[in-house]
Amino acid sequence: MSDCIFCKIVAGKIPSEKVYEDESLLAFMDIGPVQPGHVLLIPKKHYERFTELPEDLAAALGRKLPALSRAVVAAAKADGFNLFQTNGACSGQVVPHVHIHIIPRHEGDGYSFRWVAGKYAPGELQTWRAKIAAALKA
Amino acid sequence: MSDCIFCKIVAGKIPSEKVYEDESLLAFMDIGPVQPGHVLLIPKKHYERFTELPEDLAAALGRKLPALSRAVVAAAKADGFNLFQTNGACSGQVVPHVHIHIIPRHEGDGYSFRWVAGKYAPGELQTWRAKIAAALKA
Repeated sequence: MSDCIFCKIVAGKIPSEKVYEDESLLAFMDIGPVQPGHVLLIPKKHYERFTELPEDLAAALGRKLPALSRAVVAAAKADGFNLFQTNGACSGQVVPHVHIHIIPRHEGDGYSFRWVAGKYAPGELQTWRAKIAAALKA
Repeated sequence: MSDCIFCKIVAGKIPSEKVYEDESLLAFMDIGPVQPGHVLLIPKKHYERFTELPEDLAAALGRKLPALSRAVVAAAKADGFNLFQTNGACSGQVVPHVHIHIIPRHEGDGYSFRWVAGKYAPGELQTWRAKIAAALKA
């Protein structure tokens, strides 16, 4: 997409610090890192959301994540890491081109993702399961 | 692993609301949802961190995510969604068995992931790129 910043990075029209590239994927440094060593993995072809990805491309992204995450963890001497991915402005997506954040983490790094666990009313969990399972089969 | 809660769910020793299952993967409702409709996708075999996953299993997880996310979004009539994954206590991991959170999101749902973008000093971005690229080749 001509006005997409990540498509411009793929095309080499905007510079980036690339850590990995193959025919369908590109990984490069996030210039606004949540933690130093923060990397983005993207499909080269433009898709806005993960839900739009062809299965083979989603599989290729998944296949690359262990090795790429190991490299980020090793380089950052991290104690752990997060994978994070946004879809839609409501979810925090800023660049509308599928990207997976690989974020190295350290004990006591002072960072955290907000996490507020809710609770289902009796029976609600089962209703949700049925709705999602039905949608999956539709 | 005998004391792993997700292994017990896989083995049917702890009940769960399953939305999808095949020979290597299981998806079920998170009982403490960040947003209603929150689903977990896991490999059936026990691995603590995404970095430990065999490539084929990581690819299988990736391959299932688009359809499963579409089902979550459809059931929740969501405007978007997040994929989130933790590795190590420092990253927020509570159950030490690889799991991918699929979290439906709505405009104005009042939820957000904390996101504080940092900045690299001049030259630092390039140093990180070189370290990570080298670790990937090692």
